[in-house]
Formats: sequence, C-alpha cells, structure tokens
Amino acid sequence: MYSFKNDYSEGAHPSILNALIESNFEQEEGYGEDHYTRKAVELLKERIDLNDIDIHLLSGGTQTNLTALAAFLRPHEAAMAASTGHILGHETGAIEATGHKIISIEAEDGKLTPSLLIPVLDAHTDEHMVKPKLIYISNSTEIGSIYKKNELEQLRDFCHENNLILFMDGARLGSALCSGENDLKLSDLPELVDAFYIGGTKNGALIGEALVICHDSLKEDFRYHLKQRGALLAKGRLLGIQFLELFRDNLFFDLAMHANKMAEMLRVELSKLNIKFLTQSPSNQIFPIVSNAVITELQRKYSFHIWEKVDSDHSAIRLVTSWATKEDKVAAFIEDLKNALIY
Amino acid sequence: MYSFKNDYSEGAHPSILNALIESNFEQEEGYGEDHYTRKAVELLKERIDLNDIDIHLLSGGTQTNLTALAAFLRPHEAAMAASTGHILGHETGAIEATGHKIISIEAEDGKLTPSLLIPVLDAHTDEHMVKPKLIYISNSTEIGSIYKKNELEQLRDFCHENNLILFMDGARLGSALCSGENDLKLSDLPELVDAFYIGGTKNGALIGEALVICHDSLKEDFRYHLKQRGALLAKGRLLGIQFLELFRDNLFFDLAMHANKMAEMLRVELSKLNIKFLTQSPSNQIFPIVSNAVITELQRKYSFHIWEKVDSDHSAIRLVTSWATKEDKVAAFIEDLKNALIY
Amino acid sequence: MYSFKNDYSEGAHPSILNALIESNFEQEEGYGEDHYTRKAVELLKERIDLNDIDIHLLSGGTQTNLTALAAFLRPHEAAMAASTGHILGHETGAIEATGHKIISIEAEDGKLTPSLLIPVLDAHTDEHMVKPKLIYISNSTEIGSIYKKNELEQLRDFCHENNLILFMDGARLGSALCSGENDLKLSDLPELVDAFYIGGTKNGALIGEALVICHDSLKEDFRYHLKQRGALLAKGRLLGIQFLELFRDNLFFDLAMHANKMAEMLRVELSKLNIKFLTQSPSNQIFPIVSNAVITELQRKYSFHIWEKVDSDHSAIRLVTSWATKEDKVAAFIEDLKNALIY
Amino acid sequence: MYSFKNDYSEGAHPSILNALIESNFEQEEGYGEDHYTRKAVELLKERIDLNDIDIHLLSGGTQTNLTALAAFLRPHEAAMAASTGHILGHETGAIEATGHKIISIEAEDGKLTPSLLIPVLDAHTDEHMVKPKLIYISNSTEIGSIYKKNELEQLRDFCHENNLILFMDGARLGSALCSGENDLKLSDLPELVDAFYIGGTKNGALIGEALVICHDSLKEDFRYHLKQRGALLAKGRLLGIQFLELFRDNLFFDLAMHANKMAEMLRVELSKLNIKFLTQSPSNQIFPIVSNAVITELQRKYSFHIWEKVDSDHSAIRLVTSWATKEDKVAAFIEDLKNALIY
Repeated sequence: MYSFKNDYSEGAHPSILNALIESNFEQEEGYGEDHYTRKAVELLKERIDLNDIDIHLLSGGTQTNLTALAAFLRPHEAAMAASTGHILGHETGAIEATGHKIISIEAEDGKLTPSLLIPVLDAHTDEHMVKPKLIYISNSTEIGSIYKKNELEQLRDFCHENNLILFMDGARLGSALCSGENDLKLSDLPELVDAFYIGGTKNGALIGEALVICHDSLKEDFRYHLKQRGALLAKGRLLGIQFLELFRDNLFFDLAMHANKMAEMLRVELSKLNIKFLTQSPSNQIFPIVSNAVITELQRKYSFHIWEKVDSDHSAIRLVTSWATKEDKVAAFIEDLKNALIY
Repeated sequence: MYSFKNDYSEGAHPSILNALIESNFEQEEGYGEDHYTRKAVELLKERIDLNDIDIHLLSGGTQTNLTALAAFLRPHEAAMAASTGHILGHETGAIEATGHKIISIEAEDGKLTPSLLIPVLDAHTDEHMVKPKLIYISNSTEIGSIYKKNELEQLRDFCHENNLILFMDGARLGSALCSGENDLKLSDLPELVDAFYIGGTKNGALIGEALVICHDSLKEDFRYHLKQRGALLAKGRLLGIQFLELFRDNLFFDLAMHANKMAEMLRVELSKLNIKFLTQSPSNQIFPIVSNAVITELQRKYSFHIWEKVDSDHSAIRLVTSWATKEDKVAAFIEDLKNALIY
Repeated sequence: MYSFKNDYSEGAHPSILNALIESNFEQEEGYGEDHYTRKAVELLKERIDLNDIDIHLLSGGTQTNLTALAAFLRPHEAAMAASTGHILGHETGAIEATGHKIISIEAEDGKLTPSLLIPVLDAHTDEHMVKPKLIYISNSTEIGSIYKKNELEQLRDFCHENNLILFMDGARLGSALCSGENDLKLSDLPELVDAFYIGGTKNGALIGEALVICHDSLKEDFRYHLKQRGALLAKGRLLGIQFLELFRDNLFFDLAMHANKMAEMLRVELSKLNIKFLTQSPSNQIFPIVSNAVITELQRKYSFHIWEKVDSDHSAIRLVTSWATKEDKVAAFIEDLKNALIY
Repeated sequence: MYSFKNDYSEGAHPSILNALIESNFEQEEGYGEDHYTRKAVELLKERIDLNDIDIHLLSGGTQTNLTALAAFLRPHEAAMAASTGHILGHETGAIEATGHKIISIEAEDGKLTPSLLIPVLDAHTDEHMVKPKLIYISNSTEIGSIYKKNELEQLRDFCHENNLILFMDGARLGSALCSGENDLKLSDLPELVDAFYIGGTKNGALIGEALVICHDSLKEDFRYHLKQRGALLAKGRLLGIQFLELFRDNLFFDLAMHANKMAEMLRVELSKLNIKFLTQSPSNQIFPIVSNAVITELQRKYSFHIWEKVDSDHSAIRLVTSWATKEDKVAAFIEDLKNALIY
C-alpha cells in the first residue's frame, strides 16, 4: 500500500535528523531562546530580505492559526475565509473556541477576491453583527490553487481601504512558491500580507511552522500568546534546528519542487488519459475525477482521500505528493490507473 | 558555562533519535493514528497494568494542562492548585484563557491536602462564586517535593466525598516515581487520580507528554479537544515513537534515576557543607540557600535560576538535574562551591 | 411618524407598571430569590402543567441564548441554526464569544427539518470538525413562520435518535402560540423540546424572558451560569413581578392575540391590494413586497425596516405589530398604502 | 422582619416609576438609541462636565465589569484587584470566563495603592506569566471604605508610568461621593480614571449602571461588546429614563445622602455602645462586631449578612442602608441592639 493521502506521512528530511543528532548534547536555553532558534530567525529574515519583521516558530498549522487570530482580533471582530478554508471545516472550531466567528464565503477556486469580500462588508453594518476584520487565505489553498502576485496586491489594497488584516496560512507555502504558475517570491510577502507562515511540517520537517508578523501593530507581546496557547515548546531548539536546516541552503525549495514535480507528473499523465480534474491545481495536491470502479481498483494498492462525489458513478479523489514521494511509485500509480481504466 | 537551569536543556536520548531515523521513511497515518502511537498506547497500558484507560500523546505540559482542564470542566467550575502550581504562575493564564478560574491555596511544601482544601470548599457556597471542581497537583511538585501513596489516597477519598476531579501534572513524574522516598508505582495511579500525565519532555524526549485518562466520565470525545486546542500533531508518529522507546524497556525510569542520582549527589555534598535548603526535595530539583557572593562566584561557570531572596545576603537557588546531567560536572560544581564558600 | 419597526418600541403593559408600583416598597431578597420570582416560577409551572422543569428569568433574548448555549454545550460541540437564525446574524457573535461554532443551514422558510439536518450530521464525521450537538430553532421564526406540532415531533425524534439537544428561542413565542395556524399549546413544549423560553420583552414586559429547562441533564447549576454571564439581576423582583402579571390571568396571550390581529389586518388588506409577501408569516411580522416609490412615500409617515431588495424596483419591508399597536394606525397605514399605490 | 441585608431590597424611587409611566406609550427606537437614553447621556456629560467621554447604560454590575474588562484587555492581559474585590469573589468567575486572570492583592482596607501594586508588577516579568494591565478598584469598596482624591491621583500617576488602565467599579459610587469623608466630585473622575461607572441599581433605580469611558483608546466599538455580552436591552429606554430621572435634579445624590445618613446614625449610636467595627467605613455599609448571642437576638427581627467570624464568640455583621431605609427602623434597630446587649 502506497499513500498519496497527504504530505505528512513520512518523518523528516534526513539532513534535519542529522542536524538534530549533531546538536543533541549541546545545552541550550528553553522556550525558543536558544541559539538555533535565534539563528533560524535571522536566517529567515535574510531569506525574506527584511529585518523589520517578527518571526516565531510553532508546531503546527491549527496551533498557528488559533494563536495568531486570537492575538490579532478583539472579541467582536471576525475572520473571513473561503468556505474551503482549513479553519472553517478542519480545525474543530479552534478559532471559535478563542471567541471569534469565521464568516464563510463561497469561492469556486478556494481563493478570496475583493469582489467576494465587498458583499460581506456591506452586510455587516452595525453592532448587532460581528465586525469583519481579518481575511484568512491559504497559499496554496486547500484545493490546490495558488494566489498570483496581482491577486494579492488587490487583496492588500482592499485591506488598506477597509482597515482589514490580511493573514496567509502557508502550511503549503513551499509548494505554492515553487509552482510553475507562481510569480511570487518569499520576499514579496511582507509587502502584501500582514502576517503569514512558512509551513515546515508538510515540507520536510518533523513539526514546525514559521509565523512571520509583518505589520507592526500585530507584533506586540506575541510570545505571551504563544505561551498562553501552549505553543511555546520547552525544547524550542527542535523548531530552530529544523528551520535552520531547511533554509541554510535551498532545501526548503528543493523539497517543495520535488513534491510539485511529482504532482505535475500525475497531472500530465492523467490528462493524457482524458481524466478531468475537480480544480485547477498547479501545486502538490490534485483532484482527478475517476469512476468508482477505478477508485476501488486503485484502493487495493494505494491510499488517498475520496474528496467529493461528482455524480453517481464518479468521485474526485485527492492525490497529495510530498518531498518524500518516490518517482517510481508515481509511475507505478499511473500504470495501475491506466490498467484500471481499461476494464 | 554548564547549566543546571532546567531539565530541558539538551535534545533527546540517543536511542530516541535512532528510533526516529529508523522509522523515518515509513508511511504512516497522520494525527496520532499511526502504528507507533497505537503501539505506544498499548505499551503504556501494559506498563500501567490497566486496559480501561484512555491515553493521548501531546507536545508539552502547558498544552496538556489547558486541553485537559478545558475538556474536564464546565464553564462555572474552577480548579484548585497550590500557590506554587505551574498553572497558576507560569502558564500565562492558559487555563483562564479557556474560561476557568484557578483558586490559589498556600501550601508550604507545594502539596495539597484535604485540610487545605476544606476551607476552600467551605468558602464556596453558592452561585455567586465559582464551583471548585478539580484539584490540580504536580508530582513531583514545582518545588521538588513528592506525594506519598497515603497522601494521594487521602486526596482521592476527599474527591470522592466531594465529587471532585483529581488531576496530576506529571511533567516530572519520572523523577517523582524514582525518588528514594517514593512508595508509588505507575500502576497505582489509576486508582488514585482521575487523570495524570507522564512527562517525556523533561525526561529524555524531544517533546511529549502522555495523558492518561482514568475516569470514564472524562474520556468522551477527547480527541476533539486535542484538535481544537492545536495539540494534534500532523506527524503524530513523532510522539508515538518517543514513548515507545522510553517504555519499550526501562529507559524512562533509568533516565529519571540518573537525574535523581545527580540531584542526590548535590544534596548530600551540599549538606556536608552545612548548606540549608529552602524545601525538602527528594527529586531532581533542589533549592540550596547560599550567600549572594557565592552566587556571583558560581555564575561565572554555571547557569541556574535564582529562586527566591531569603534575606539581604542570601538567596535560594534552583539546581535542576536531568537524564543528561554529567557526573563530572556535578563534581566540579561541588568543588567550585566549596572554593567559593572559603572566600 | 408611527413605527412598525419592531415589537419593543413602547414600554410595558400598564398592569405591569401598576404591579411594579404596588410592590415597590416591599423588601425582597435579591438575585431572583424574592417571593415574586418564586411565585412567577410556580405559576408558570402551572401554566405549562408540569412541575419537573426548571425556570429562570433573564433580561433579554441574546442574554438567554448565550447563557443557555454556553451552559448546555461542551467546548467542542456546536449549534445548528437556520441561516436566518437570530444567533447567527444579529447577536454579534455572542455564541462564538462563549467558544462555540454555529453551523448555518439554508432553510427557505426559516425552519429546520430533519432532512435539512441529516446532511450536516453526515458531513461532521470526526474530531477534525466540531460535533453538532444542539439544534437552535425560533418560534415564531425571524421571518414570521411558525412550527406546527408535527414538525416539532419530527425534530424531537430526530434529536433522540442522534443524541441532540433541541432548543427553542421563544422571543416571540406568544405570537406563535396565538397564530391562527398554530396547533401547539404551551404545555406541549416540554415533551417536544429540551429547553425553550417565553419572551416577555416583545410581548408587553419591560424586559424579561422565562427560560424553561425541561431535560434533566441541562438543569444542574444553571444559576451559576446566570451569574457568570451577568444575567442575574440584583433586583430580580423586576422580572418576577412582570411574569406574574403576564400569566396571572390571560394577559400574555391576550397581548399576543392583539399583535397577531393587527398583523392579520395588514396581511388581509395588503393581499386585497395584490401585494405579494416575501414569506408566509402567520404571526406578528409580515414582509410585503412593494415598489421603492411606495416605500419612499410610506416612510414619510411610518418607520419600518427595509428587509431585502427583491429586484431593482421592489423591496420587501418588514412590518411588526405588537401588544401596543393601535388599530387606527393600522387602518391609516393601509389607507396611506392604497394612496401610494395609486401614484 | 426588617432587612439591612443590602441596598437592592426595594424597587425604585417613586419618581422613576412615574417617569416610566409617563413615557410608557411613546414609541422609541430600540437598543439604547431612544431619545431618553440620548438625553440621559447628554445630561450625564453635563454633570461630569466633560463632553469627550463615551457613556453606555447597562443593567447591572457584573455585566458592566465583564463587558468592560473583556473589551479593554487583550487575551494575555490580566486585571489586578484587592482580594475583597467584587470581581474576585462574588461574580462566579465572570471575568475569567472571558479569558482573563485576576491577580488578587491583599489590602487591609479594601483599597489598592502603588505600594501594593509594585510587587505585583515586579513579579510579572516575562511571557510565562500574564501581563498585569488593568487596576480594578471599587468606590466605595466592598468593605465600605472610600478613595480620597490624592489616593486616586497616586494610582493615576502609577498607571501612567506603567501603562496601565485604571477602572473604577462604581456600583456604590453615590454613597462614596456623598460620604462625609469624601473630597471627590463626579467631575474629577475623568482626570483620575480611564473608565468608571455610576451605579443606579443600588441607589434608587430598578436596574442600571452608567459606564463612563474616559480614555480614548478604550472607546472604539464598545456597542459591539455590549451586544455580544447580552447587555444591550431591546427596550433601552428603561435605562435612559431612569438615569434621566436620577440626574435631572439632584435625586441621585439625595438618595445616596439619605443612605449614608442612615448608616452614620447606626455608626454613631453603635460606637456609643462601645461596639467596635471590622473596618472604617464612612459609606452605606458598616461592619459592627457583636457577640453571637446578640446576633441571634437581632435575627429575630432583622435580616443582615454575617460577614466574618472574629473569634469564637463574636462575628462582624454587615449592615447596609439605602435610599429606602426608614429612619424609624434604624432607631428601632439601635434600641433592639441596646436591649440585646444588656442580656
């Protein structure tokens, strides 16, 4: 059984494990005040090409989302998210548990635009309703699409005009930035969003998300929020060492590139087989639509999510590739799919 | 500079890192549904000698405390803790952030007893006050003391009589159970407390606390709470592998034994020097009282916390040992302290 | 300017004010432990024809909703509501502020049914999502429709099968129960729902909602929740006296009957003018669709809400009648509308 | 049985009830946007002699405290209060339920001073602890003492130096300002505190507290918080009318003056009987220490709180007077006490 179920099936890239071993017996300060975390933060600032940002390392995506949003919003303020947004449907009400409503917005491709947001602002006019304050976007999105630079510029301008916060969930930022269709650089982000994070967990780390706070007004006292939400690891070095390794050279991008390449291989070959896709996804998640019979056949050798029923005979499945996906397994999957289609 | 500052200065025990490496490329389910976590849970049930318990693996102590207490308490119910309790003074209001008051109780040795709790219950008589519902204890405590079996039996009986929940923070449970004064076995705990955890982070793991829920009424839907509080790691295997390694043989106890032995060495030798201690602590934290001049001298080579001012010339310092503390460093410290005392 | 804007424009029914005056100098216990509140609770139990219920008097609807839902739900549990539900759009995220998500369900007539709820339960399958636990319905609904007995029976059975709580917002329960289409008695409710409230504020009281908790499991410690949410009035007598007066004889129903009669008069006469309505509403709120020109004309003499744009030339307006609505004003409104239609 | 149990035993001053009756059939906007509330706010601004303040009318003290503190504080920020503070022991964890810790400070006379606060700030040094941000004081305090102007000036200066918010619970502000020892004017308060409220419930109103927000940074969006916490009454006129009546002429102060005069009569006469008091209280609450035998005797005709056991034979009782306390009842109480002392 080979899994295309997600991008966190394996452990960590070997050089990360090596770095953990090499540093293992050094004594370090706790709670993210160790040398590795400090160096990782400095290194990330170099890569982002900006010094005037605050960077905090957390364990996972839900933790990062809830800690950041709870810190950024006042009690009556709400987040807005595409209906596919991770915080809306896959985090067990983590944001609401901190007291904030999330306003769900239908968006065909999983991406928010000013034209989708305007009606929401128009409908929230007075104190009998929450005050929409933060736009939550994911890049890449939960359905594999990515934001282009001009789309983010439009969102940024819209936020400025309406005094809103723009927050980017970057659990899969690596894959987005390494997509063939991408025109964004990591260093573009501080000009475009108020805060974002760089996902390590789904791109080669054991755990780890690097939250980058760009807007000054959101920076104050953030470490208090980390501690309060249980996000400050005693052995914070575990996070620092991993991000150092990911960004020391080009590892972070190399890994994302590999994941994308594997997805591209699937996309190209499946297209040749006249298979349609639920969404246009130029990143490491693809959603081919296949017959239920084919699904049953594939499930004998592969695990993956059945994403959505399309009609009585067909469903979209989700195939996710990662830094660890093996090319021969992708090739074998394609072959097996061809065979399944013949019957 | 050698650190006696805490028990999370180093990484993980090498056999844990080896286990991570060996399993690194296996594909596993996410979110704690992997084989390693399942095996670790089974193994822990064997070690605790009880099958009818639920076990969940989390990253750290604050996270475990806040997730458990928020799950166990209704909105109007409060926790009670010794004034030295970690949740009261060192978790940035994490429990209050989930909506619950903690009632602080002065306790000289950091331990709660029925006689300290009775006045609290007596004082909380009606709906204008919170309803005291959960007793939070730490074993070993934040000031190094440990609970004896009969003390826990008294607390358990008190809880039964008063319909209270008894929760044990076991961030340093290893050191407590391996203390020379201890008369508790791990397998005694389910009969004594309603929930407790086995701390890995401070006893050889990178991260990891194993929460054991003993009382049936507290078990339902706990994984929802894990996810909601950001405590469910995508690569949950990271936790499972570590606990498997700690409990496969006797590693967990061996490591705690070493930490205690190093503390004992300090305690014995410092006593010989007529140094007094702030508290009686038979575990891996000791609190010797030394002159400020001696502190200054020691700080040239060692790092440690200055715990409390005792008089204008003396303070108690906290020395913490761990699985990684080196015996020669302890010996050197003692020697340096002797020399400092001469001047 | 005469207002059809809502049912809380005037003060209280005169007999309520008289009762306040008559009792004014009697000394009473505070916080709802006064004789009037006790008597009101006893009287309500008689009217509901059941002794085994708990009744608490609160000030207003939002307060009642948030206090009850926060008391009834555990942190990971969510409410479900029709998208028109008051808690979803007009209470500033009050429920979310207590930590709970509300799942919005499209329902054409503002009413929930098992067939609308099944897909929600089906979609919430595991701990990555909130656990749907409570069904919030309003009777009459926010768009004037009412629940029939068999509809509530179906919901009740669905709740039993799925271990759900059925909660009825009765801010306008008087109007619902006095509707010409109603087949429910007040005494039917405890068999049908787990908790509901009887709205006083919108039916002749100054302030006041009587929350009736029917299901035993929801009763415990409720007064703690009242106090914690700021809902326990020091001079609780203010609430007791009003409900005593409303239910001593038939005042509560007489007032609702009058409101409905005034709405019926509008409905019948507007229908004669071939005016269509946005919703079928047999209660004290109606939503006629008129041209923007007519609206402008009517606004010279009357205030009301413009509810929803229907097309570029027409909008639905909301007309609300109450215990205090004057028949001659209704007649005048109809006349003025006729005149406006001519032009 | 005559009650000295509290200052909310009776209804409202008759002129308030008259005002309710006179305005009863006028149609008004809901939710505090009515003419009465607007006028009351304007009138209060005149009385406070400042236009640049925001004033909101709420129902009760707990509601005001929780709504204000939750609005003013970020999640990691804590309030500080004297251990006798109402929010600490008599509001069922209402503040904690909004996520905030309250730091309890022992203060003999129920009043906070910079010298009591300095150690708290000194002890809260980093992100492992909450950030003390708001000073909660009550005037008069829960044990009857009052703040002098210079004491408030010192607190204000301390707040400025330490970037803290000074919040005054004025549930009994009337009694404080009318105390013989008082040197404060209502119009002094905006220069001294960042927010305070003027208690109506305990000084002649049915319900009602007027929250005055002085500091600009605390004003934004406050009505959202009112609605979110269930504090925005549909018939907000009920609050506006009462405060208009209390402040139209001098009624608010006249009523407080009467309450104080009754307490003064008790204080003077009891002193003559060589009765000692638990606290120096120049306001409408006094705490005489009497023998248990005397208490038993008095309880035959009077109700009051037994506040605190003093020794095995004596307890302090709390006697509270109000705008409605009758002078002949006070005289009778004194006489009965004299008789009880003889035996």
